[in-house]
Amino acid sequence: MNDYAALEQKFARIACLNEAASMLSWDAAAMMPDGGAEARGEQLATLAGLAHEFLAAPEIAENLAAARPETDWQEANVALMREAHIRATALPRDLVEASVRAGRACENIWRQARQESDFPAVRAALAEVVNLTRESATILGGALGMAPYDALMSQYQRGITAADATAIFTRYETFLKDALPKAEALQAARKTAALPPGPYPEAVQEKLARELAAAAGLKFSSARLDRSAHPFCGGTPTDIRITTRYDESDFASSLMGVLHETGHALYEQNLPAAFRRQPVGEAAGMAVHESQSLIIEMQAVRSDAFLSHLAPILTNRFGKGITLGALKSRLRHVARSFIRVEADEMTYPAHVLLRFRLEQALLSGNLAVADLPGAWNDGFHALLGITPPDDRQGCLQDIHWYDGAIGYFPSYTLGAMAAAQLMAAARKAVPDMDALLARGDISGLSGWLAQHVHGLGSSLGFNEILTNATGEALNPACFEAHLTARYLS
Amino acid sequence: MNDYAALEQKFARIACLNEAASMLSWDAAAMMPDGGAEARGEQLATLAGLAHEFLAAPEIAENLAAARPETDWQEANVALMREAHIRATALPRDLVEASVRAGRACENIWRQARQESDFPAVRAALAEVVNLTRESATILGGALGMAPYDALMSQYQRGITAADATAIFTRYETFLKDALPKAEALQAARKTAALPPGPYPEAVQEKLARELAAAAGLKFSSARLDRSAHPFCGGTPTDIRITTRYDESDFASSLMGVLHETGHALYEQNLPAAFRRQPVGEAAGMAVHESQSLIIEMQAVRSDAFLSHLAPILTNRFGKGITLGALKSRLRHVARSFIRVEADEMTYPAHVLLRFRLEQALLSGNLAVADLPGAWNDGFHALLGITPPDDRQGCLQDIHWYDGAIGYFPSYTLGAMAAAQLMAAARKAVPDMDALLARGDISGLSGWLAQHVHGLGSSLGFNEILTNATGEALNPACFEAHLTARYLS
Repeated sequence: MNDYAALEQKFARIACLNEAASMLSWDAAAMMPDGGAEARGEQLATLAGLAHEFLAAPEIAENLAAARPETDWQEANVALMREAHIRATALPRDLVEASVRAGRACENIWRQARQESDFPAVRAALAEVVNLTRESATILGGALGMAPYDALMSQYQRGITAADATAIFTRYETFLKDALPKAEALQAARKTAALPPGPYPEAVQEKLARELAAAAGLKFSSARLDRSAHPFCGGTPTDIRITTRYDESDFASSLMGVLHETGHALYEQNLPAAFRRQPVGEAAGMAVHESQSLIIEMQAVRSDAFLSHLAPILTNRFGKGITLGALKSRLRHVARSFIRVEADEMTYPAHVLLRFRLEQALLSGNLAVADLPGAWNDGFHALLGITPPDDRQGCLQDIHWYDGAIGYFPSYTLGAMAAAQLMAAARKAVPDMDALLARGDISGLSGWLAQHVHGLGSSLGFNEILTNATGEALNPACFEAHLTARYLS
Repeated sequence: MNDYAALEQKFARIACLNEAASMLSWDAAAMMPDGGAEARGEQLATLAGLAHEFLAAPEIAENLAAARPETDWQEANVALMREAHIRATALPRDLVEASVRAGRACENIWRQARQESDFPAVRAALAEVVNLTRESATILGGALGMAPYDALMSQYQRGITAADATAIFTRYETFLKDALPKAEALQAARKTAALPPGPYPEAVQEKLARELAAAAGLKFSSARLDRSAHPFCGGTPTDIRITTRYDESDFASSLMGVLHETGHALYEQNLPAAFRRQPVGEAAGMAVHESQSLIIEMQAVRSDAFLSHLAPILTNRFGKGITLGALKSRLRHVARSFIRVEADEMTYPAHVLLRFRLEQALLSGNLAVADLPGAWNDGFHALLGITPPDDRQGCLQDIHWYDGAIGYFPSYTLGAMAAAQLMAAARKAVPDMDALLARGDISGLSGWLAQHVHGLGSSLGFNEILTNATGEALNPACFEAHLTARYLS
């Protein structure tokens, strides 16, 4: 067996372990009784430990040095394998173990601290996490030839730098300053009908969610829809597991949630089968993944055309008069708010921008952990004109930093912007898009995405995928145009 | 770390992989969409391959040679580790791979052949499986100091030999010759009420099954009940997964099935936690496991006392008059039949005895595969006085031999007999047993089992467990007494 083939075989074995872990994580969230938690933790730790051990093995380095890839895809595959091997070996074992311990300890303290809005309680633990993350980022950056923050950011999304994101987000800040008050004024002036009060029976919501997901292209012969406290899309490309939660007073959150996860699922289902279980056959990163969930949920489903199709269906299924106007008010409402995960699509980027700036400052040391709450509140006020009443609604709200995930936040907004840019390109390629959406038909869009995004796997990075599909790297003008059309006209 | 501690750590890692595989196998049977089958096969093969690799590692042999166990349990643990290591290393890799391939190929052919009742179609493939199994059994027997058939049988149940089983089964043959016609005559003379026709709604069956399982001691905080085509008990001791299937025309099969699996589950739940993930902390074998499912299902639940408690509950839940007499007729009916899995408790051992004799003859070479159908039909007639009309209802009915499992069959009947013997001992220890069962209370029995069987893990073998719990090795008189009391009085 030649070295390239040996690498493919070794990475396929690693991928099998990761697939097993993915299914067990789904099970833990959707099925497992409480009593199984401790054993499950051990099982997942064993699988992760083995995957790391195999990835870091010296024979991988030997294969990488001698491998002679024969196609562009093989070459991209080897490059990704090399980066993965470097990431798995660059850090001293002591540092990795200290980071895992610090993250776990900090996360535990944070759960309590958030509940009690007590930042000082978690300050020291967070400082430890930030210090260890800085140390790791510096070593990884050196090994990969990147700035420390970029070394973190690129583990979630390759192909776009913090400098790129800074320029784009700063421009958005200017846009928002102008657009948000206008949108709020228009919204206030508009007569909005409220949705009828519930109950919206869970069983009806679930049946409809299934039908809409299937209509969007989710193949239930290779997928399941279940319940969990926090909705997600897990599993593997031929066995997707999406979850949601139901609220009988509000059908919209489960339906939009399922369609969001369906966007993720379509991406996974359409990844290139010829490179299954290879790095180049995987999704291209978290920002690209988010673009795929948001292009279904925000661009397609919340469009005028699709909602005009959906309103009568909802009326029929729930036996309550649900007008297009009321549906739009519910699904396209702009509001300044403190909690990121509840934010609308116009203000969401402000939440991300704040975190993006602060996490870079924490990592560089320009911001001391002790000063985080003040910097958060000042930054939040500067962006959205309101100040969180407490740290629970401020710098304590997200788990990310407290369990050591620095560099992830920009993915959310890069994804939202990429979704708008991809939708604009898809509209050019599929000229009857609105007519299709008005019939509830997402296949024109999803077919285009399968070809221009899903099928590429990780053969290209973030900006390369956009350039390939739309003719240019990420251009925030598309997202601004989308918001202008939806909220300012 | 000393060698014993190193062994515990290595076996715990292997156990974690096996736990992961167990959960994924449950998922494959109870949850997985069809599209996931191929990937799941690869995941399970990867986990099994790694578990085998770790078990066969030369460092294990070094640790075993140097280990100094300090307690009886540690000593038993090391002995089990040693046997597992020998089993994992004794066979040449070529032979293992050829056996896996042959078993898989034969099983595939068998599925079709069974459907078409076409033994000649699978004859050559089965001959290959038998030849390879003979070769493996001879090598394993040499390595373990056992006869070839015992080497196979003991991988399913340690602590009882084929010679022991032969004596016991032969005695049962004599008992059956006399008892079966008598039981049939008594049954024919009795006036039996039929159960009212269905439907027995699935939801009511499921709710009741859950309640009965919980009442029997199954902790749903560490267990689930789901559906699958073939009921089983899987998962891990702190996360048991039992499954059943429902038939709205017959409540009895799901209820008895769930209580049977509950017996397996109680065993797993009560295994010694101090030796979790160690060989000595596992269940003692398939025959002991079967004794635990059958002592709940056959000895406790189908007793006069428990059924007198159950009948009014069924009447109430299903809103149909279900008399004790009709329930007994349904659950305690003796009949000569061709299919093992549908056989009653009196004739079931005849099905096993036939297979036990034939598989030994196949393995030794005394019976040629080509002569199997004839030998089956002759043997069946000699035991039960009827002849299968075709091989589908004869030697093609079970998967076991066709996928290479020789030596498993005796476990079923050894388990049934052990259940009767354990029940007799439990009745002496818990003198008000029938009063408890008549109130639906199985805790007296299950508490006794937890102490005398479950908590022992694999520290003792089959006959040692029985001797320890009942004062003697397996004595078929208890099973005969049980059948006599239930069917001949």
